[in-house]
Amino acid sequence: MASFLLSSPSKSSIHPVKLTFKSQQQHHRIGNRNSRSLCAVLPYQNHKYTKIGAVSVGPISSAKLLQSVEFAAKIGAEVVMEAVNKPRNISYKGLTDLVTDTDKNSESAILNLVRKSFPDHLILGEEGGVIGDSSSDYLWCIDPLDGTTNFAHGYPSFAVSVGVLYRGKPAAAAVVEFVGGAMCWNTRTFSAVAGGGAFCNGQKIHVSQTDNVERALLVTGFGYEHDDPWAANMNLFKEFTDISRGVRRLGAAAVDMCHVALGIVEAYWEYRLKPWDMAAGVLIVEEAGGAVSCMDGGKFTVFDRSLLVSNGVLHSKLLERIGPATEELKGKGIDFSLWYKPDDYNTDL
Amino acid sequence: MASFLLSSPSKSSIHPVKLTFKSQQQHHRIGNRNSRSLCAVLPYQNHKYTKIGAVSVGPISSAKLLQSVEFAAKIGAEVVMEAVNKPRNISYKGLTDLVTDTDKNSESAILNLVRKSFPDHLILGEEGGVIGDSSSDYLWCIDPLDGTTNFAHGYPSFAVSVGVLYRGKPAAAAVVEFVGGAMCWNTRTFSAVAGGGAFCNGQKIHVSQTDNVERALLVTGFGYEHDDPWAANMNLFKEFTDISRGVRRLGAAAVDMCHVALGIVEAYWEYRLKPWDMAAGVLIVEEAGGAVSCMDGGKFTVFDRSLLVSNGVLHSKLLERIGPATEELKGKGIDFSLWYKPDDYNTDL
Repeated sequence: MASFLLSSPSKSSIHPVKLTFKSQQQHHRIGNRNSRSLCAVLPYQNHKYTKIGAVSVGPISSAKLLQSVEFAAKIGAEVVMEAVNKPRNISYKGLTDLVTDTDKNSESAILNLVRKSFPDHLILGEEGGVIGDSSSDYLWCIDPLDGTTNFAHGYPSFAVSVGVLYRGKPAAAAVVEFVGGAMCWNTRTFSAVAGGGAFCNGQKIHVSQTDNVERALLVTGFGYEHDDPWAANMNLFKEFTDISRGVRRLGAAAVDMCHVALGIVEAYWEYRLKPWDMAAGVLIVEEAGGAVSCMDGGKFTVFDRSLLVSNGVLHSKLLERIGPATEELKGKGIDFSLWYKPDDYNTDL
Repeated sequence: MASFLLSSPSKSSIHPVKLTFKSQQQHHRIGNRNSRSLCAVLPYQNHKYTKIGAVSVGPISSAKLLQSVEFAAKIGAEVVMEAVNKPRNISYKGLTDLVTDTDKNSESAILNLVRKSFPDHLILGEEGGVIGDSSSDYLWCIDPLDGTTNFAHGYPSFAVSVGVLYRGKPAAAAVVEFVGGAMCWNTRTFSAVAGGGAFCNGQKIHVSQTDNVERALLVTGFGYEHDDPWAANMNLFKEFTDISRGVRRLGAAAVDMCHVALGIVEAYWEYRLKPWDMAAGVLIVEEAGGAVSCMDGGKFTVFDRSLLVSNGVLHSKLLERIGPATEELKGKGIDFSLWYKPDDYNTDL
């Protein structure tokens, strides 16, 4: 039975039972005050969430990929650290230039390295779009400065995030987090390779074991666009702040995911992230023993537009609320499926 | 004219024009869509917010007070750092004990020091209540571990906060912030003495100069009690997330205030904080050039139950939304005035 669960973990999560908002309302009317949560629980119970990491990392060895992705993130982080130490007391225009320049210079440093080491690989950067050979099985997803607003304000945390996919699935990942702040800036490096575990500064890390929402510390994010998903997540923020230990709002997706992997928060979710925000973090969470899905509970790819990562044991419990809220948005015609997938890039998704 | 403004800064803020919710609604009806904000602006424009720091720090020199308060906070921080380095992978009961023990041991270390150095001073601790001579003009407000939830999860930031009042007004303050996290824990020490400026690790610090809400990064907190002020602040969180660069939710009041003083966020507000949460942070903000008031814009004391600290130039603009929301709560009979003030403690408030 155990081997059945392991070999077919995706069956139920690829095709989750859909709860439309209308059907919830109907349940609501006929039930007592708790009926909504009781009804909403059923489709997410006992799910096994599809593994998002690559089964094979291709012809390049895991060790080489891991070393390369870490080196790439650290090259970007050097550029960012140089900018961090520049005085912040500058004009708005000057600050905007600093942010833009840092973003570009970090990406450029990473791109140069990747193109030199792997000239035939495809690259998707936040700044530069798609570069390279789309017939490659490898796609590098680069966020040269994740948490730009925090960086601009000197507010920790922010990060450099580099993930490499093999045929569409995360194969190796590195995130350099900037911590501390003025008078004590520092970094720590999270990394993972598919099937090889997750690490922080070289030490193996693991998600928390908290199996109870009331004891969970959570974190979420709100995008720049203030539309229906933004409003829906405001409601989720309120609901989870009410029932958990608290919902943190830190402002850098890659960092929030690494914090789940490190076991200091139990879960993180957000709508409308981009592949370069997610490619590294999701693998680090999964390799630290956590679960990754879309916010409707369905199978996740880095090209999707909603993300829930958790310590695994809490995943279904969180989906009791996050799932229906997402289904409601989908019911309004909002599309959370593939975006930013380079044309012609071949995947096993 | 300048000296008039300096010598009478409190006139308008002690007696702010009160806008009840009813009167706002009436304005609303007769105006256009923008009438609420236009009407609400008027009472907060061009305010000078009453200085909250002590005019005199009493017979003990400023230097001695500053040195003592810094030493006290650092003694507590040593206890906390010892606990931070203990493995977190323990049972819930074990974790609860760790938190409780750390809180108590940190407070006890600070208490011992203060009682030895100033045996005739009054002390208000989070754990131990009121100790000492209530005829003293000095009151020490001690939070031995601010941000307990973050501490329990190993999630930065949390802090040790020690403020000393002279006749009810903040005279000296120190906050030791724990930053970084696993693999890179570190601390930085914020301090201030009334009239003497604010410092981080000995370097003078200053609030930001951002005068525009759209460019502001903000931070707030939500208390344990999920009542009307909690719900009102959820609305403020949503409104300000909508119109600003973002609202962070970090989870430690003293830390959030120090971040305003450091200029990395523009403002912080919260309902229902205790004197030991606020006594140090408010002085650090004010001495860094910021403004401090209650959330209705009125004069603040550390015994009040609502707090807004900002970089000063944004204070009135923030009160355009925070003020009416607070007046509405007051209109419902919710009391934000004095609490936790030790009986018989003499003040100049």
